[in-house]
Parts: sequence; C-alpha cells; structure tokens
Amino acid sequence: MTTVKLVSDAQAANNPDILAVFNDIRTTRQSDFINNFWRALAIDPPLLQRTWSGLKAVMASEGALDPLVREMIYIAVSTANGCAYCIHSHTAAARARGMSDAQHAELLAVIGLAAQTNHLVTAMQVPVDLEFEVNSED
Amino acid sequence: MTTVKLVSDAQAANNPDILAVFNDIRTTRQSDFINNFWRALAIDPPLLQRTWSGLKAVMASEGALDPLVREMIYIAVSTANGCAYCIHSHTAAARARGMSDAQHAELLAVIGLAAQTNHLVTAMQVPVDLEFEVNSED
Amino acid sequence: MTTVKLVSDAQAANNPDILAVFNDIRTTRQSDFINNFWRALAIDPPLLQRTWSGLKAVMASEGALDPLVREMIYIAVSTANGCAYCIHSHTAAARARGMSDAQHAELLAVIGLAAQTNHLVTAMQVPVDLEFEVNSED
Amino acid sequence: MTTVKLVSDAQAANNPDILAVFNDIRTTRQSDFINNFWRALAIDPPLLQRTWSGLKAVMASEGALDPLVREMIYIAVSTANGCAYCIHSHTAAARARGMSDAQHAELLAVIGLAAQTNHLVTAMQVPVDLEFEVNSED
Amino acid sequence: MTTVKLVSDAQAANNPDILAVFNDIRTTRQSDFINNFWRALAIDPPLLQRTWSGLKAVMASEGALDPLVREMIYIAVSTANGCAYCIHSHTAAARARGMSDAQHAELLAVIGLAAQTNHLVTAMQVPVDLEFEVNSED
Amino acid sequence: MTTVKLVSDAQAANNPDILAVFNDIRTTRQSDFINNFWRALAIDPPLLQRTWSGLKAVMASEGALDPLVREMIYIAVSTANGCAYCIHSHTAAARARGMSDAQHAELLAVIGLAAQTNHLVTAMQVPVDLEFEVNSED
Repeated sequence: MTTVKLVSDAQAANNPDILAVFNDIRTTRQSDFINNFWRALAIDPPLLQRTWSGLKAVMASEGALDPLVREMIYIAVSTANGCAYCIHSHTAAARARGMSDAQHAELLAVIGLAAQTNHLVTAMQVPVDLEFEVNSED
Repeated sequence: MTTVKLVSDAQAANNPDILAVFNDIRTTRQSDFINNFWRALAIDPPLLQRTWSGLKAVMASEGALDPLVREMIYIAVSTANGCAYCIHSHTAAARARGMSDAQHAELLAVIGLAAQTNHLVTAMQVPVDLEFEVNSED
Repeated sequence: MTTVKLVSDAQAANNPDILAVFNDIRTTRQSDFINNFWRALAIDPPLLQRTWSGLKAVMASEGALDPLVREMIYIAVSTANGCAYCIHSHTAAARARGMSDAQHAELLAVIGLAAQTNHLVTAMQVPVDLEFEVNSED
Repeated sequence: MTTVKLVSDAQAANNPDILAVFNDIRTTRQSDFINNFWRALAIDPPLLQRTWSGLKAVMASEGALDPLVREMIYIAVSTANGCAYCIHSHTAAARARGMSDAQHAELLAVIGLAAQTNHLVTAMQVPVDLEFEVNSED
Repeated sequence: MTTVKLVSDAQAANNPDILAVFNDIRTTRQSDFINNFWRALAIDPPLLQRTWSGLKAVMASEGALDPLVREMIYIAVSTANGCAYCIHSHTAAARARGMSDAQHAELLAVIGLAAQTNHLVTAMQVPVDLEFEVNSED
Repeated sequence: MTTVKLVSDAQAANNPDILAVFNDIRTTRQSDFINNFWRALAIDPPLLQRTWSGLKAVMASEGALDPLVREMIYIAVSTANGCAYCIHSHTAAARARGMSDAQHAELLAVIGLAAQTNHLVTAMQVPVDLEFEVNSED
C-alpha cells in the first residue's frame, strides 16, 4: 500500500548508511523494533539520516519539556494534519512514556476544542487584540 | 475586518445572556479584559455560552494535564490549522502561565518536526505497524 | 501583496480573451464590479476562462440546491481551508443572497462543531460503522 | 484500529453518566443504534456529555437552517478536514434527511470548486476587496 | 466504501454523456483503463465532463512545465491535503512519465521540508520581508 | 506581529552559533540579506542550525530535480498549508531561479486542479484502484 518499497533488515545489512541509522534507532530506543516509517525513508539514506537525527534531537534529548508532553504535542499536530500512522505511533509512544487514560482524554478534549475555536475564529475573521501583540512581544 | 460585528460592553450591558458570559469570563480570568473572539461570538448568545462553557471546562479546570501543557497543545493544533488569532492568543496565555523561551522554542521544534514527518508518512502512504495497534489497544 | 500583478480594466480592454470573461462576469452578476480574484487570474486568460466557466456552472446556475445554500457550503470549505479572501467574498455573496444573521450564526455553529468532531474522530481513529456503509451504498 | 477502547452497551450499563447520554442519543434519534464515535468518546463521560449536548444543540434543534442544509455544511467541513468517518456518517445522515442524488452531486461540485478557488487565491495572495469589507460590515 | 455508486462500463454504455467522456479519457491516455475517480464522478455527467476537461487542459496539454513536473506538483498538493487516492494515482502517473527513485526521494524531501518550515513560520507568525514583496511585484 | 523576537545582526554578532549560520546563509546565497524566518528561528540557535542545514541539503544542493522545480514544489505545499510568508518567499526564490510568468500560471493551474480533485475524491471516498498499487509497487 506504500508508494515506496519498505527496506528489510536483509537489505539494510548490505547498506552501511542505512544500517548505521537502524542501529542508532535500536540503541537509542533500547529496542530491536524498527517501525515502517524508517523502513520507508530508507529508500533515500541521506533523507533517512537527516530525518532520524532531527527526530532524535527533538524527541529523544534532554530538554525544557517533559518527553511525554512532547509526544502529546506531536499527537496534536498529527491529528490536525490527519496523519493516521503518526497518531497511532505517537499515541503508542505517549503510552509507553506513561500517558494515563485521563491524560489522553484531556489531550483529546483540548484538540477538539482548539479545532472548534480555530474554525470559529477563521469564519468570523477575528482581528488579533492589541493585548496579545503586547504580551507576545514584551 | 471581521465578517460579523463585535459586541461592545455597552451592547452587552443591554443583553443579560451576553452580560452573564462576559461577567463569568472576567471572574474566571480575574481580569476585566474581554478579547475579540468573545465579542464576535456574542452575535449569537447561545453559541457564546456553549463555546465559553466548553472552553472553561477544558482549559480552566482542574485536570490531568498542567494548564501550561494544555495551552501548548492548543498552540500546536492552532498552528496546524493556520489560525493566526489563536496562535497569538494562546501564546500569550501560555506565557502568562509561565512558558519560558526555552519551552516555547522546544514547542516550535516539535511542531515543525511533526509536520515534516506527517507529510513524509502521507506521501509514502506508510502502513501502521501491528505493534502500534497492539500497544494502543492493550 | 499579491504574487501576481492584478489586471486593470485598461489592460483588459487590450486583450479580447480577458475582456470577454470580464464582460460575462458583469452581465452574469448584473454589476460593473470585478473583484480582485478575477483580476489576478487574468494573468493567464485560459485559466481565467476555465475558472470562471466552472464557477458560473456551479454557483450561478439553476440547480438542486438553493443559491444561498451553495454560498454557505462555499464558506464552510473556505473556512476549513483557511482562505480569508474567500470567506470575505462568499460571506458578502451569501448576505447579498439574503443570509440572515441567525442563519450566519447557525452556519458558524455547524462549522465549529464539525471541526471539533472531525478532530476528535481523527485523534481516536474511529472505524466507520457498517451501518453507514450500508446507508451510503443502498 | 482505534487509539481508545470502544465502550460496549454492557459497560455503559454500569456507568450512569454514559448510560444517560446513550439513552438520550437513542431517544433523540428514535433509534437504538449508537455509532462508534459515541462509544469511543465514552472513555471520558464528561467529554461525551459535552460533545453530545453540543451536537444536539446545533444539529437536532429547531433553527434558522434546514436540518439537511446543516448536514451538507457538516460534510463540506469534514471533507476539507479529511475526516473519512465524518464524511460517511454525515452523508448517511443527509440521505436519511432526504438528500437526493442531484443535491449530493451539487454539494460535491461546490466543495470541489471552493477548494480549487481557495488554493488559487492563496497561491496568488489576493487582497480582500474593500467592497467585501463594506458588504460584510454594513 | 464510497459515498456514491461507481459507474460501470455497462452503465456508461447507456449514457452518451458519460460514454463520451470515458471514450475521450481512453483516447487521450491511449489506455482502456478508467480509474475509480471518473467512475465515481460519473454520477453527475456534467461534473464528470467539466472535471475531465479541466484536468485534460492542465495535465495533458502542451505547456510551460514538463508533464512530469506537473505530476510532482500534483503529488505535493495531494500530500498536504491528505488525499491517499490522489497520492497513489499521481505517483503512478509520475512513474509512468519517467520519475526515477532519486527524483521521487527528492520530491519527498522537499515536501517534508516545506511542511516543517510552513509550520515553524506559522507558529512564529513571521512577517513577510519587504524584499519578497518587491521581488514578487517587479 | 511575531510571537518571538527577531534577532538583529547586532545580536547575532554576539552569538557565535547564530553568526555562523547567518554567515553560511550569506555565503550560500551570495547575498547579505537574511530574511525574517532565520531571524525568528535564531531565538533557538540549535533549531536555527538544524533547520538551515536541512534546507541547505534539500534546496541548495546538486540533486535529481532542477532547483526551480524544487521551488515550485515548495510553493505547492506552502499553498495547501496556507503559509503566506512561505508562498511569498519561495515565489520570489522561484522567480530568482528563472520561473517565467507562463510557468507560474501553470503552477497555479496545477495547484488549483489538484485541490479540486483532492476534495472531490475525499468527499466521495474513492477506493484506490488495484492498478495504482501495482504500478506503485513494481
């Protein structure tokens, strides 16, 4: 069903660039599992390498936001962009990072509310209040 | 620039339904400021009342997620939906709730990364891994 | 602010293909006013002609839906696609076709509700009920 | 395939809050059928209750727009937001409310046309005509 | 799974308007194959005819852009709009027009990069540089 | 109007990480001009560095696609994502790379057509033809 061919471990074993990324994914995640997204991106080793290093820097690093919070933000963007695969993979990741059913339900509630008000604001073409400019610029 | 007329305080003073919502917004936020979104929605008092009560229940309640986290999720959805007003208002709200520059930068990084991978997954039509189904259903 | 140059009446007067479309717009709408969308599309007369004939066939024809209903559907799509120009132009068109403030408010309410449930369904990845398939196929 | 567990009638029977909403859905629709969207939302009874009461107020009430028109606006938004479930459920609802094949075809034509012009306007960054501001504000 | 009934060759044979379009598709593409999109649109022969003539004029004509480039632009828009069917059909069309694996990978890389920067720009609400206005207006 | 503060050359001069990226942008583009996107991203030097290196790798490299074609694909994605800034900046970039008015008009026509058919396909929920799967997998 993909528009590209997924790269198997046997194929990766014959390409040092792909293998290096797959191995880093396994080491970083402490799991042998390589999900289909990386197997698809592997059709282009430089794209695979850049995308993984970007994801590792943002999602698997020490940072100012809790890793679970980052996963929930990821789910929110993926929902608005309609990416079913991304919603499944990052909901699984959020659960693996300890997202409770109550936190998941609250995430859903915020996503739905934001979408509703986004569309209401857009349909009414509401101008930005000066107060927000001030707050955001100070 | 709006497609509806904004309701002024003078007009609200003459409509008990609008005034009740404006007063509850002021009490809940402990601020006299009513932003344009509510002044626009006030063209339809029942829509104003339903929208405010929904927002109050999701964003201004005790819950499983930190209020700042909810604001960041709101910004993420608003960005993917392209709502400039919502991005400005909820970035201001997140700052008011203590979002640091480092947290804001990390929010931006996650939003950008998610959008990139959402589009890559969609363009390649990557099938959901069985592992994610299992994780998400267990 | 456009990425193309708007075609003036003076320029249109020197191009029979553009002039023919501008004149048909004026005749069809019984107004001398040519809005900026057509002046922008006029950079490519065949694109102008195809787009106008498509719009005329769908929006300015006898049909199964009331012209006002078509304008409200147009506003709904334009809102979800975030097209400010289209929201302004078709809200004006809907008003010219008799849209009342109450109808406008109800249009807004449906748009906001649909966006909210669209996002909730997507975030939860709800499978289509067999009953809907059956209903939609019978 | 969902990211949450669907709530069965047996489970609902043990939760008065869920049962109250399911019963109101059945009474309002005069049907015993509860579609998957509500079974998924039932993971969070307050979210279920708020969402149903919002939908009931907007879609199942007396109002300024014909119920079939509201369903067609819902389909338009759901299409632009890419919600397959919502398109199926509300196309079925529109048919149940009497949407003819000719009306459905015209709905499709307006949706497609609006999307085309939305994207053309956005790509050309067409400025809003003063006339539309005036019309929309008068 | 469609919300309309697909029109078979047997049904098309009984409708001269549908048959004329199906025959023109076959002649233009030098193939007997009619894909599901046209069989679905055939529920409304005028919509089928307008849509096909528009597609033929833009995609199957002599023009300023290479036909393969047009297919890649089509894939880019279809990806951002989340249209799985369109991504499959136009990726197949691009391959038929000679798109190499390297070109496909580069198309994917540009799509992902653009989506990432689109979202970063929107979240930061970056104002357009005067230089771009100048460039685009000269 | 931004939600972050733009970094000036004076501020960049005091931060080696920012200055290194600004200098590489200037060298790569053989221009002293740094557009607002980079000045906004500079609030987070690592995000600035990653984003610039990703853009440089995809847009400013030797590759399988003509640089002008990459810019047109970028415009197509930016249009569907509704990013006005990105549309302005990459239309200017495409013109700088030689995009003719005729090529721009054809780009617009493909974008509009794709959006129209994307929405028609989605509203009708057209299933992918087996032939496309086969073509895309061979």
